[in-house]
Amino acid sequence: MTLGSLEILDPENRVVIIGCGAGGGTAAQFARKTDRKATITVFEKGKYPQYSKCGLPYAISGYIPEINDLVEFSEEWFKKANIDLYLNTIVEKIDFKKKIVYAKKDGKSIEKSYNSLIICTGAKPFIPPIENINVDSVFVVRTIDDAKKILSKIKNSKNATIVGAGLIGLEIADSLRKRDINITIVEALPRILANNLDGDMAEIVANQIPNEIKILTNHVVTKVEESNDKIKKVFLRDNTSGEIKSVDTDFLILATGTKPETYLAKSIGCKIGKTGGIIVNKKCETSVKDVYSVGDCTEYVDFVTAKPNLVGLGSIVVKQAITSGTNASGGNYELLKGFLNTSTSEFFGIEIAAVGPTLNTIENDFSVVTGRFNGSSLPAYFPGGRPISIKILVDQYTGMIMGAQAVGSNAAQRINTFACAILGELDVKTMRRLETAYAPPIAPTLDAVTLVCDIVTMKLSRKK
Amino acid sequence: MTLGSLEILDPENRVVIIGCGAGGGTAAQFARKTDRKATITVFEKGKYPQYSKCGLPYAISGYIPEINDLVEFSEEWFKKANIDLYLNTIVEKIDFKKKIVYAKKDGKSIEKSYNSLIICTGAKPFIPPIENINVDSVFVVRTIDDAKKILSKIKNSKNATIVGAGLIGLEIADSLRKRDINITIVEALPRILANNLDGDMAEIVANQIPNEIKILTNHVVTKVEESNDKIKKVFLRDNTSGEIKSVDTDFLILATGTKPETYLAKSIGCKIGKTGGIIVNKKCETSVKDVYSVGDCTEYVDFVTAKPNLVGLGSIVVKQAITSGTNASGGNYELLKGFLNTSTSEFFGIEIAAVGPTLNTIENDFSVVTGRFNGSSLPAYFPGGRPISIKILVDQYTGMIMGAQAVGSNAAQRINTFACAILGELDVKTMRRLETAYAPPIAPTLDAVTLVCDIVTMKLSRKK
Repeated sequence: MTLGSLEILDPENRVVIIGCGAGGGTAAQFARKTDRKATITVFEKGKYPQYSKCGLPYAISGYIPEINDLVEFSEEWFKKANIDLYLNTIVEKIDFKKKIVYAKKDGKSIEKSYNSLIICTGAKPFIPPIENINVDSVFVVRTIDDAKKILSKIKNSKNATIVGAGLIGLEIADSLRKRDINITIVEALPRILANNLDGDMAEIVANQIPNEIKILTNHVVTKVEESNDKIKKVFLRDNTSGEIKSVDTDFLILATGTKPETYLAKSIGCKIGKTGGIIVNKKCETSVKDVYSVGDCTEYVDFVTAKPNLVGLGSIVVKQAITSGTNASGGNYELLKGFLNTSTSEFFGIEIAAVGPTLNTIENDFSVVTGRFNGSSLPAYFPGGRPISIKILVDQYTGMIMGAQAVGSNAAQRINTFACAILGELDVKTMRRLETAYAPPIAPTLDAVTLVCDIVTMKLSRKK
Repeated sequence: MTLGSLEILDPENRVVIIGCGAGGGTAAQFARKTDRKATITVFEKGKYPQYSKCGLPYAISGYIPEINDLVEFSEEWFKKANIDLYLNTIVEKIDFKKKIVYAKKDGKSIEKSYNSLIICTGAKPFIPPIENINVDSVFVVRTIDDAKKILSKIKNSKNATIVGAGLIGLEIADSLRKRDINITIVEALPRILANNLDGDMAEIVANQIPNEIKILTNHVVTKVEESNDKIKKVFLRDNTSGEIKSVDTDFLILATGTKPETYLAKSIGCKIGKTGGIIVNKKCETSVKDVYSVGDCTEYVDFVTAKPNLVGLGSIVVKQAITSGTNASGGNYELLKGFLNTSTSEFFGIEIAAVGPTLNTIENDFSVVTGRFNGSSLPAYFPGGRPISIKILVDQYTGMIMGAQAVGSNAAQRINTFACAILGELDVKTMRRLETAYAPPIAPTLDAVTLVCDIVTMKLSRKK
């Protein structure tokens, strides 16, 4: 508001948010919670308001029968919260000096000025260099529309090839298998889940995946063969032998990771980190005044290693969104010194979870002692115990727990306990003394959570 | 060993252990682990070596079909470990000056000298003042033989009365219900689970217990009526109205708690605490030189309140046993500054768990702020979510988490995370920032574990 040449403080709090994924949607909610009177605008290029991307595999499997149920906050919800949500709207330009966002919807221009801007532009799929990749029946799994296309393709298909044996690749494999599709997973690296688990833990998972799921590690897809607009087969190269093979396939799914979507942030000079993500501080502020960044486009610091990171976990997105939404609306909220990267997944009935870095990402920088415990979720005499394996990574000099990985019964909840141990900067000797809840139908007297700490404590004492 | 009048150091390490429950058996194991050459003797008055007392309800229900499977370490195991196990053997006297234990088996006297003595005499059932209680068909659930008697009684019975609506009472009720016995539970206090959960959390449990289980709170059993050596009915008094009622019953089970068994410890002058348990230090040493105490006969310090406590949890027994067994054999192991009392149970499909003190045990000594979150184990859009309620107790001034209680999905594992938070002395504002593992089939983006911390953090900020 200007009064002649005298600019006075604008009493109105105007928050503009670009993107309505988990980041933008949650940021809008917390902006609203913090200031009931703020003017909050959300621009979303897609046609759906905030929905669960992580739920897409379960809509593909049919476990969630109505895909639109993935929408967690409807247009009505935004209306009731008095948040202006513009769907199908592209942000074309930001003027960070005048603090105006220029967007376009159905050919019509929209201008919104802001006090605070939150960038939640997310990430775009990484497309590997495959000949003839730009054809129909090659899919990614990022949006409801992607999932709808896959669902419609499934009906007349028998065989699918999935590129990438990470979490998403395996989740999608499980989903398609439930639709009676024959699956081949092609992974360029020598093993599955290379970003999530150490090799020995990934092997435990690999041994439990049904044999009917063909997993070709050390293989890359080189070419898609198509005739009459239909994929017939894909060609693969065995990276070990150099041999070229072909696999009959009706469609191809790329689960090869993502790259942060940062062009808008770059256009206004936001500093970009080594990882390719937008750099923010503990308040989620970028290097440009009054501009925040949240979610998969955002680089953050790893709690354990203090290095920049970019993982793309929903749980991290939401915590950043709470922070930026609160601060953008005049509140005061800070993130911790870094993120723990607690993650979990389930496929083919196998639950996996992890927190902190994996060994190969830190073994050059830290002296790490590891230990693994394989046991049962219940006492030996009690029927119904299920296998649980836990591995932990411990700093040799401080004894501090740096990371943990679990496969099996209640892996996620057990990993949450380690997340808390890392957050509390507990050393392994203290953690081994943790009293875990014991009752025969629930857990053994000494849980895997502490037994794995015993193993590492003994290793450490032998090193001294 | 004496050489003339010259006493030289005995090169042999002699450990005597009284009692072969979870405490004595585990202490023997760790004494052996610590010193492969030690002479280790265990005296046990009963006829079974170390078995799981906590497993007895599941042998009664038939879920564990062979009750002897509860034996976790067999006589053969002790033999192989070169541990002298004397079953059916009563320790009659300890000479703590000469360091000799005098025992009797089948009328024959046994004398064993020791360097270290570990007392694991456990606890005896508390028998409430009920007229005519000393008849057949009144049972406790402490030993395999108790369970065998109950199993044989079940065959010709229709109705049972259980005295006490604590964990054991409810576990036994579930077991007997699975045997098609009609159950009446009689509880003197105004509510169930008074030692385990706060009133609001116990009410959540009470509402889920099937209606066919009659629970009479504020009632006491006054008298057992018997004819021809068979119980016919028991008489109850309603403590609210004073009314006397009777209930048809074929047998009675007392689940009214225990008292520490300390007569041997007292006989040698071990200091006994206010709770009635033997006082020990962090090494599990009693006030008498070279005498340790472990398990239900032993008083310990509460981690949170720093007050003496006596709970009788298997998980605590085992940790004390590891400590005393290691130290008695020449090792060096210390307990933490206190115990967390992490506990769990499951009955009628309801999982409950808790850690730290309940509100009524601390509200006079601390300014406590509590919060409760009731939600689902899974995201709202994902089918199959189960209810989870978590309550936490937080110190108003420090924000430190003092206790947590949970009812519902994975209650025990969620409580383990709070046990870790208490162990790490985390405050609730830090804990609300914990990244919990998220995936739609496993857990919501923000788990109940952190949402309950949000609630208390907001309450605390309003108090400032």
